[in-house]
Amino acid sequence: MYKMSVVGKNVRKLDSVEKVTGTANFTTDVELPGMLFGRTLRSPYPHARIVNIDTTAAEKLEGVKAVISYKNTSRVLFNTAATSTFTLPPMMPVLDQYIFDSVVRYVGDEVAAVAAVTEEIAERALSLIKVEYEILPAVFDPLEALKDEAPALHGECEAGKNIPAEKIHLEMGDVEKGFAEADFVFEHTFKVPVQKQTQMETQAAVAQVTKDGKITVYSTTQTPHPSRRILASIFEIPYSKVRVLNPPYVGGGFGVRIGLSAKAEPIAVALALQAKKPVKVVYTRTEDFIASDTRHPGYITVKTGVKKDGTLVSRKMHAILNSGAYCTWSGETPGVLGAMGLSMYRCENQMYDGHSVYTNTTPTGAMRGFGNPQAMFAIDSQMDIIAEELGIDALELRIKNMMRPGDKWVLPYQCQSTGLEECIKNGAEEIGWNQKGSFDNSGRFKRGIGVAVGTHVSNAWPFCGDYSNAYLTMQQDGSVNLAAGVPDLGTGTATTLAQMAAEVLGISFEKVSVTFGDTESTPFDIGSHASRTCYASGAAVVAAANEMKAQIFEYASKLLETYSDKIDIEEDHVYSTERPEQRISLFQVAERAHLAGIQFIGVGKVIPQNAPPYMAHFADVEVDTHTGQISVIKMVGVHDVGRAIHPQICEGQIEGGIVQGIGYALSEEVIYDKNGKQVNNNFHKYMIPTSMDVPEIKAILVESNDPSHPFGVKGVGETGLVPTAAAIANAVYNATGVRMHEIPITAERMFKAIVKNKNN
Amino acid sequence: MYKMSVVGKNVRKLDSVEKVTGTANFTTDVELPGMLFGRTLRSPYPHARIVNIDTTAAEKLEGVKAVISYKNTSRVLFNTAATSTFTLPPMMPVLDQYIFDSVVRYVGDEVAAVAAVTEEIAERALSLIKVEYEILPAVFDPLEALKDEAPALHGECEAGKNIPAEKIHLEMGDVEKGFAEADFVFEHTFKVPVQKQTQMETQAAVAQVTKDGKITVYSTTQTPHPSRRILASIFEIPYSKVRVLNPPYVGGGFGVRIGLSAKAEPIAVALALQAKKPVKVVYTRTEDFIASDTRHPGYITVKTGVKKDGTLVSRKMHAILNSGAYCTWSGETPGVLGAMGLSMYRCENQMYDGHSVYTNTTPTGAMRGFGNPQAMFAIDSQMDIIAEELGIDALELRIKNMMRPGDKWVLPYQCQSTGLEECIKNGAEEIGWNQKGSFDNSGRFKRGIGVAVGTHVSNAWPFCGDYSNAYLTMQQDGSVNLAAGVPDLGTGTATTLAQMAAEVLGISFEKVSVTFGDTESTPFDIGSHASRTCYASGAAVVAAANEMKAQIFEYASKLLETYSDKIDIEEDHVYSTERPEQRISLFQVAERAHLAGIQFIGVGKVIPQNAPPYMAHFADVEVDTHTGQISVIKMVGVHDVGRAIHPQICEGQIEGGIVQGIGYALSEEVIYDKNGKQVNNNFHKYMIPTSMDVPEIKAILVESNDPSHPFGVKGVGETGLVPTAAAIANAVYNATGVRMHEIPITAERMFKAIVKNKNN
Repeated sequence: MYKMSVVGKNVRKLDSVEKVTGTANFTTDVELPGMLFGRTLRSPYPHARIVNIDTTAAEKLEGVKAVISYKNTSRVLFNTAATSTFTLPPMMPVLDQYIFDSVVRYVGDEVAAVAAVTEEIAERALSLIKVEYEILPAVFDPLEALKDEAPALHGECEAGKNIPAEKIHLEMGDVEKGFAEADFVFEHTFKVPVQKQTQMETQAAVAQVTKDGKITVYSTTQTPHPSRRILASIFEIPYSKVRVLNPPYVGGGFGVRIGLSAKAEPIAVALALQAKKPVKVVYTRTEDFIASDTRHPGYITVKTGVKKDGTLVSRKMHAILNSGAYCTWSGETPGVLGAMGLSMYRCENQMYDGHSVYTNTTPTGAMRGFGNPQAMFAIDSQMDIIAEELGIDALELRIKNMMRPGDKWVLPYQCQSTGLEECIKNGAEEIGWNQKGSFDNSGRFKRGIGVAVGTHVSNAWPFCGDYSNAYLTMQQDGSVNLAAGVPDLGTGTATTLAQMAAEVLGISFEKVSVTFGDTESTPFDIGSHASRTCYASGAAVVAAANEMKAQIFEYASKLLETYSDKIDIEEDHVYSTERPEQRISLFQVAERAHLAGIQFIGVGKVIPQNAPPYMAHFADVEVDTHTGQISVIKMVGVHDVGRAIHPQICEGQIEGGIVQGIGYALSEEVIYDKNGKQVNNNFHKYMIPTSMDVPEIKAILVESNDPSHPFGVKGVGETGLVPTAAAIANAVYNATGVRMHEIPITAERMFKAIVKNKNN
Repeated sequence: MYKMSVVGKNVRKLDSVEKVTGTANFTTDVELPGMLFGRTLRSPYPHARIVNIDTTAAEKLEGVKAVISYKNTSRVLFNTAATSTFTLPPMMPVLDQYIFDSVVRYVGDEVAAVAAVTEEIAERALSLIKVEYEILPAVFDPLEALKDEAPALHGECEAGKNIPAEKIHLEMGDVEKGFAEADFVFEHTFKVPVQKQTQMETQAAVAQVTKDGKITVYSTTQTPHPSRRILASIFEIPYSKVRVLNPPYVGGGFGVRIGLSAKAEPIAVALALQAKKPVKVVYTRTEDFIASDTRHPGYITVKTGVKKDGTLVSRKMHAILNSGAYCTWSGETPGVLGAMGLSMYRCENQMYDGHSVYTNTTPTGAMRGFGNPQAMFAIDSQMDIIAEELGIDALELRIKNMMRPGDKWVLPYQCQSTGLEECIKNGAEEIGWNQKGSFDNSGRFKRGIGVAVGTHVSNAWPFCGDYSNAYLTMQQDGSVNLAAGVPDLGTGTATTLAQMAAEVLGISFEKVSVTFGDTESTPFDIGSHASRTCYASGAAVVAAANEMKAQIFEYASKLLETYSDKIDIEEDHVYSTERPEQRISLFQVAERAHLAGIQFIGVGKVIPQNAPPYMAHFADVEVDTHTGQISVIKMVGVHDVGRAIHPQICEGQIEGGIVQGIGYALSEEVIYDKNGKQVNNNFHKYMIPTSMDVPEIKAILVESNDPSHPFGVKGVGETGLVPTAAAIANAVYNATGVRMHEIPITAERMFKAIVKNKNN
């Protein structure tokens, strides 16, 4: 391990000045000469066949430069999710989308699009497109969609009626034998809602096509390289002729654009191809709600067998998730749900079955946690029930059963480190666990404390392919350019990658400049998702830096008249480790190398493993029993982050995740009416926590130094959301004695449950 | 050597469709949100001290956002030429420029600049700047500037009065002994003019500075990486924080922007820093004439000792070049002039002395041929005189004395190949050399045929540092991205680099996409100049492709169940060389590697040698003895290009060079009046050959396959210009019996010489 001079420090975030001065460029800011504006016509019906579409009037409107529909666009099937580019055999990618199809499958599905010289003209043109629909029967609930009488959204599916991807089955030991040996068996079913990512920047893309057919797309994607593959496939040109880049900033993501930014990119490209001008497509907030992926809602059943002493002996999980109208991540999400659910605790006998189901609702896909918040709500709600029933302290039960290095689990990688016990203990201290049950709950307001733990991934593998590459070039003044294909979604990726490069190279942080999120200037990287940038892309950066360092040592050995293994770098100076007074500035080394015709270039190529981050969340809540209103007084999140490259960034991720987790637990839910229309697809009606709703949050870091990463890093991008809902539900139970099996625990649901509980 | 499938073919030039449809983007096309327009105030005097400068009124004008002068800009000395970034020790770079200085040294020197919301306002603001000058004595001729009474432009110079850089001295053998042994000694002095590059796109830059101080400059530079160094030095930030890129096209160069595009970049950056907005600076054509480098004019004396049989035994050259007001390439140009002049022919005893001299004229710098057209006009005019005097056929004299592999010369690399004899013979055939002297020249119109030969470089070393790097990434469909730091000035660099990559990799040309001219997406390359892109950058591309190929073979060996050295690629398929029916498409190999987490990435790093291209030019001219008007009837250029990667591109370079050479020989000359003002600084008065002036041109390629390059390539970018003037002057002599020692041979000069000749 290196002596740390940059890693672990709260250096200035590279994008901070631009962000706070409002000068940072996002896709919506891109302006190109002659650029047109694209708008999309969307289906008002949840399921219909387009019998006729007449675009004549729209085409004739002055200022309209292109009108596209299924009749004049690519007939190549694709998947907006990057899953299609990574699915590991023997699984097969599911390709079930066209840019436009002659059948629409949800309210908001794409019917046609227009490019015009202004947005207003484009909007007017949409109203001139005449579409004749034949209404088809629709289904909105996944359990209903499995039934024989339900409409088949995509014809026959190999895995079963309306089942888009292979069913996931995980198994270890013998669950039935385990249940037979258990002293107690618990079984509960939980229901989880449609949560929306509500990232600040809506889906957007600007496409430009040169006369020789090279396509450039500025986009909000979290994964430029995979998106390039998808677009090249749709438009049937060599992958090398497509450039996808962030401009360079992206206003968040939370999983909503792992792959394409919904259909912003292909619609922009198709319009640009027809108009022969650049085209900008920016989703309205309502379009972003109705026509870009949400979190998977669904039903999760957990059956657990325990010994009297609390030892888990058998666990069986089952999940049915709603895929919505297309299969964007609906194969992988149930996989992560099951794998994370099972691997949280040590348990010899385990089994999981889960899958998604097509329905006529907005497609569901990746969102922060990716199935795991769903799993942990179920798992750690049930752990609370078990602790209560067995009369064991909730913390003790978790520590007793927690996964430890060397324990067997269902995953193909090892648990090599855990700081969970420390997390639980630190969190208990911070929240005041010993106060639990000591509040005066005799009146209208009842207060309670709850805990939940979680785990997650640091990388996408084994759920899909995952690898990273990076370039490092040393300039002739000893400063360094780092090029990595991952976007910085606002999470500080560029900063932490630069820190790792500076640390390995022994140079000042200020001398590292980072290029990211551009397929033209970076080698392949699967992108920013799965809490992987610091872990996976970071490992590639470290590998590149080590290669560069070896070149520097080799070259400097002549200047310092020593061996290349007797050299080190510190504070931008190269020195002989045997005679430290033999020093030469990196500026001089690089300049002399330049004059000798040498640039130090490091290429890092890694196929990362994975490592489990762990976290313990504690909630202190107060329930107004007259209204059902729940106030969160304090949240504590203690996270085993492996190693904090930039502690403030880690804390920021945890705090943000907790806030989004509070929304998941208490207020966020996209609701469909009986015609499949979202009733709350804007920020007035869809309730994300505002600053008024956010309690005191304490984020605490624990470092377990995972051996699978050169700096010991684990993922932290999603973890703050993972156990939050369960911690709050458990605190609500502690306050009221009412167990909630469904989130969000809105005031209405809480009040009804309190009334029902009283009546029982 | 590879079996050629792409190299040697006239594939479609990558930029052709964009160029012919007028959709290609140049720096002048760059538009950025909030962009301002910069204009520059220039000195009306050839030499003056700024006593006072009052910018108050300009600053107050509505719409003006920045006003800069020497008072509020960087005081770091620099050199707009890239020489400052490459000068090889023991030579020292000459840094004699500020963005603005308090002394102006030529008519057009920068005094102040303004950025405003429109060009008109910026122009108006310039007229509001009040400057009080103290006029200083000025000097315009280099011989005058050497005298004691001449003003010293830059104070004391180490090398002598007004001598900006070290004097060049080259020596081999003993020239005095050689002259003593000669049967005849010839000595002539030649005078060469100020030629202007007249590239289509004037000097231009658009600068953008982010709030965190990162500088991006879109520019017309031929050398983005060196320009980045220069700009970072001027503005004192780490090199890694500056990005310089072509947008991506550049409207020619011909040497005028090896380094910065005159001062377009630093003025744009300085204005952007003050205005905190992007700023575009585009030179007018007149500004381009008066304030960006021209070719070096000067005086060249050649003294040659020969034996009766024509064998050269001693040669001494001397050159004094006019540097203009600053030292942009004035150290290197006399070096190339002397080295090329001496190395053209085998001669045991050789000596050269040459240098530049500061004068109060527009700085002179690099232009196509870089001193060599000056040298060859002198050398091969004299060879014609010698042939005539000795009664030896002009072709025979040249073949007898031509440099051959293994011959000694003054250069630090070897002549390893020559196709010159073939060039001479093919050209003689094509022009009809045997007609020479057979024309009926009894009337007013006299016709004649002339020959001249030339050599040149394929690379900048040993005249300055020179190296190239390249990245190649294989996409998952088997297509390839190539990233090289050289711009494509219109010469087809991108196309020929892509051809070499495709050839080595065994893939279709259409699958290679090229990124060039951008410091952010490419590793260091010194840039597009010195006829080096195909030779030097091409070698880096080949090295990268070979590295990638090794990775592919390694990976594919498992799929083909053979050894990695028993594999080859052809037509996008990988196959076993032992069992060719064992084939797998590169698409499949790349996709399987992708799923295994591997991208094939090749990095090429080369420190290129050099190789001498050779050429023989033949001119067929007709002189109107009543007016002095010379018409070129036909030009033949036969060039040893080593190997033609793209024959049409080679021919195009030769044809273009010949046209520019005709201008150099007959019409192009920037003329200064007695106050140091250019009198013909626009296309109405400065006479470049138009389509009406261009004769039939026949470009013929000879391939000598130089062993110093993987494909045998030699440079061809500049060679068409090199011997053209001498060939025409020799043809003029053949027609009229009048020997011209000065170019351009305008009608006026020709007429006077005919009259003078008659009177003698």
